[in-house]
Amino acid sequence: MAVLETIQKLKDTFLDTSTVIALTVFFALLCLCIIIGHLLEEHRWANESITALLLGLIAGLVVLLVTQFESSQILIFNEDLFFLYLLPPIIFNAGFQVKKKQFFKNFTTILLFGIVGTVISFCLISLGASLVFSRFGFTTLTIRDYLAVGAILSATDSVCTLQVLSQDDTPFLYSVVFGEGVVNDATSIVLFNAVQSLDVRNVSGLTALKLLGTFLYLFFTSTLLGIAAGLMSAFIIKTLYFGRHSTDREVALMMLMAYLSYMLAELLSLSGILTVFFCGIVMSHYTWHNVTESSRITTKHAFATMSFISETFIFLYVGMDAMDIDKWKSSKASPGISIGVSSILFALVLIGRAAFIFPIANISNCCKKRESTKIKFRQQFIMWWAGLMRGAVTIALSYNQFSESTTSSVQDNARMITSTIIVVLFSTVVFGSITKPLIEAVLPRHANHNISDATDSPSLEDLRLLFLETGDPSEEGNSQPSQRKSSFRLLMTHTTYTVHHFWRKFDDKFMRPVFGGRGFVPFVPGSPSGANEEEQTT
Amino acid sequence: MAVLETIQKLKDTFLDTSTVIALTVFFALLCLCIIIGHLLEEHRWANESITALLLGLIAGLVVLLVTQFESSQILIFNEDLFFLYLLPPIIFNAGFQVKKKQFFKNFTTILLFGIVGTVISFCLISLGASLVFSRFGFTTLTIRDYLAVGAILSATDSVCTLQVLSQDDTPFLYSVVFGEGVVNDATSIVLFNAVQSLDVRNVSGLTALKLLGTFLYLFFTSTLLGIAAGLMSAFIIKTLYFGRHSTDREVALMMLMAYLSYMLAELLSLSGILTVFFCGIVMSHYTWHNVTESSRITTKHAFATMSFISETFIFLYVGMDAMDIDKWKSSKASPGISIGVSSILFALVLIGRAAFIFPIANISNCCKKRESTKIKFRQQFIMWWAGLMRGAVTIALSYNQFSESTTSSVQDNARMITSTIIVVLFSTVVFGSITKPLIEAVLPRHANHNISDATDSPSLEDLRLLFLETGDPSEEGNSQPSQRKSSFRLLMTHTTYTVHHFWRKFDDKFMRPVFGGRGFVPFVPGSPSGANEEEQTT
Repeated sequence: MAVLETIQKLKDTFLDTSTVIALTVFFALLCLCIIIGHLLEEHRWANESITALLLGLIAGLVVLLVTQFESSQILIFNEDLFFLYLLPPIIFNAGFQVKKKQFFKNFTTILLFGIVGTVISFCLISLGASLVFSRFGFTTLTIRDYLAVGAILSATDSVCTLQVLSQDDTPFLYSVVFGEGVVNDATSIVLFNAVQSLDVRNVSGLTALKLLGTFLYLFFTSTLLGIAAGLMSAFIIKTLYFGRHSTDREVALMMLMAYLSYMLAELLSLSGILTVFFCGIVMSHYTWHNVTESSRITTKHAFATMSFISETFIFLYVGMDAMDIDKWKSSKASPGISIGVSSILFALVLIGRAAFIFPIANISNCCKKRESTKIKFRQQFIMWWAGLMRGAVTIALSYNQFSESTTSSVQDNARMITSTIIVVLFSTVVFGSITKPLIEAVLPRHANHNISDATDSPSLEDLRLLFLETGDPSEEGNSQPSQRKSSFRLLMTHTTYTVHHFWRKFDDKFMRPVFGGRGFVPFVPGSPSGANEEEQTT
Repeated sequence: MAVLETIQKLKDTFLDTSTVIALTVFFALLCLCIIIGHLLEEHRWANESITALLLGLIAGLVVLLVTQFESSQILIFNEDLFFLYLLPPIIFNAGFQVKKKQFFKNFTTILLFGIVGTVISFCLISLGASLVFSRFGFTTLTIRDYLAVGAILSATDSVCTLQVLSQDDTPFLYSVVFGEGVVNDATSIVLFNAVQSLDVRNVSGLTALKLLGTFLYLFFTSTLLGIAAGLMSAFIIKTLYFGRHSTDREVALMMLMAYLSYMLAELLSLSGILTVFFCGIVMSHYTWHNVTESSRITTKHAFATMSFISETFIFLYVGMDAMDIDKWKSSKASPGISIGVSSILFALVLIGRAAFIFPIANISNCCKKRESTKIKFRQQFIMWWAGLMRGAVTIALSYNQFSESTTSSVQDNARMITSTIIVVLFSTVVFGSITKPLIEAVLPRHANHNISDATDSPSLEDLRLLFLETGDPSEEGNSQPSQRKSSFRLLMTHTTYTVHHFWRKFDDKFMRPVFGGRGFVPFVPGSPSGANEEEQTT
């Protein structure tokens, strides 16, 4: 048809065709992922991450076959896309939906695992890599490259972990493993950056101290920035009272300010991940209560949807990226070498994680007096296992280090990238599918129940304290032994609960009147405080 | 501080700093726009578009001052960004929220204005430009350039129109002007593409015929694709019954399939705008009723929010783009020439629009027998006035034509782009702020009421027909004179209503049982059919 030809000709110049093709393919695959993921929902071995990953691999193969083994633009991993657009919604949503009480109760444990643990893992993996890799023909890698490998492989994948662990069945494990994941992301990115700027010739005792200083600075300023952004959004929405005007404006403002906090953190060279995570927590505590009922439902589901889409997109992307033929060609590695290197890397990951999970968990147990709050060995095992997955952060950092490195040879660089890809694929597919059944086997239903009871009992204790304070009659039926303790003894034995208690008082007296929050919001027309609110703020 | 320096150094290599700066600036400005727009809400002369435009201008000036009049990357208009990411959510949301009955009732009028009108405007503006511009020192422009100018300036700005007209106060005007805007966008883009591929040496009678063929082909296939995508989403969600599973999946699937339809249309060289518009209409008619109550609230507000953010972003962008110093420098035009050229372009726009609004409206009036449904002169005036604004589509097409043109000189190209920018700024600011008060003056409250009655009465008629058909008792109190007409006479006098009547029967019998829709959805737990549903489907 002449008409068709004309159109083809006249449209060709208009939009960048390769972008349109890439977008069409990606969106079609995303739709397919959601549909297949839904159909496989009942299947205990499968989840959306694995579906997306496998679909990505298949799509990558198809693209390779269609383009006759020429590399295509679709397959190249783009760090900017990942760090600027895909990661922020995931981490923000995690902060927004996290069960705050559970998270802050385990805050010390989370920090220990996330910071000290990551550093231990980093040291071990770097050391192991530098000792073993020279035997595999890596001749051009420098100390800096080995240190980078340590940082790259210390970054656990918090996205897949979220899909494997259930916040309702195993709340304690979920909050610790996920919280560790967020802190770990920040730690490993900081370590990675530090390694990249390291002057290898001038390593001294001061270097480690400098690194520590940098890390603490980053951690506190990033957290503060996130809290400030969250509070600002709460204040603006409460003061200007957007509710009278439009739901869309409220939702838009929450989205934009969350994203702005991430960008601002990146601009100030802080950790955007930490910032946006805390921004999410503060927004769910204050801002979310200041908006209309429709805005609450919308934000809750819209943020979850955006996070869901980003996650699926990442796994699809990682799957397609694994078919990056150029890298495989230039690595010139036989299958034996590829598998050997990847196995060693993965063994290092296993050892590196074991080396901090079990010691730290036992140290943490020593500080606890009550038997019920101690971390049992089975739980430690699951914590070790669930954090072994490596994901998109690992791939992004690996590309960053090795795709443009000038000190080492093209072949070594390509080998490092392909090995990282193998580790990520293997760990996601194997661990992603085994973990759910494993948890059911190791922590059977009734045990789960006990555990969740064990971790919930402090919250009863907590409620009791609140009851003593405010005389809430709803706690009358609680048969917990009610021994009055002095404020001092409380501070000694249950520091966390006391902190929480004082925080509650501070929050009610100073924060909520200014920033809003549950029960401190002026009447919003058409906004009954329904079941959704209950659900959100547990 | 040494720590700070280290961080600065180590982060610099990591993410592309200019992207981060650009994103931070844009998101900060977006937040500011929303807040200022909210504060100015009561102000009748201002609206969000103008706020965003002015804020963009100010921001552009600040950037210029900061970079000391060097061009910055922030300021360059990116067509891909506009056509691939910003326009689709706006048009989709327009289709999703449009009052379908009103829209299809005026469908013939809308098509006449959108297609025939745009072609008339295109011819007049091209002719005018080619006659006048040689006197202003444009020596290198070819016939193709003049034709392109016609197409570029025929594209009305449907975004700003939406903000100025109210769907509730003036439903007839809103549906006609907005519907015209959507069809007009498609028509002018098709014309523009046709002009670009035109072989100027071989213009014959066949060329016009070819163009017509192309246009009809594009119109029907694009519409069909959009309808197919919408129906597919309805079918998938109804059949696989996502409701039992997760709200997030339903919302994600609706979003992704809508976007996929746009991309697919672009890939097949069709009009994505038309496709995504009809996809939105079909989704709101079928898919929206197949999902859970939370999904309905979420989609309704999330789509509106995304559209709102995109709109604000576009105006901000256009404002900042106006400060593109390179273009102003290379146009080498004195203020007098700039203003002269822009005035002529704008005069051509005024004449071009007048030349089709009044004739077509009067022709359309001749075909109508009932006095109440005729378009009054005051309404015609508002229709002429409200469509005079030019927006981002105009700027995008102008950049496309003149930024890389090889046939004409750099100076002429730059002049054309800067003149287009002036026309867009002037029309948006002046017409955007005057139109609302003007409508209040020309169509006073009580007149409005009459008009909306007049356009609503067919719907009563319509209901009566339905009542005769199905014996709906709720219409018993209707005092409309009830003359039974034969089916044939109905077809002659009120074709539209009869078409609508048959469509209703077809819809109920064949479509809804397969694709769902109001009243044809299996029970979804926790999904009471509330007020929101009423609101949506009017």
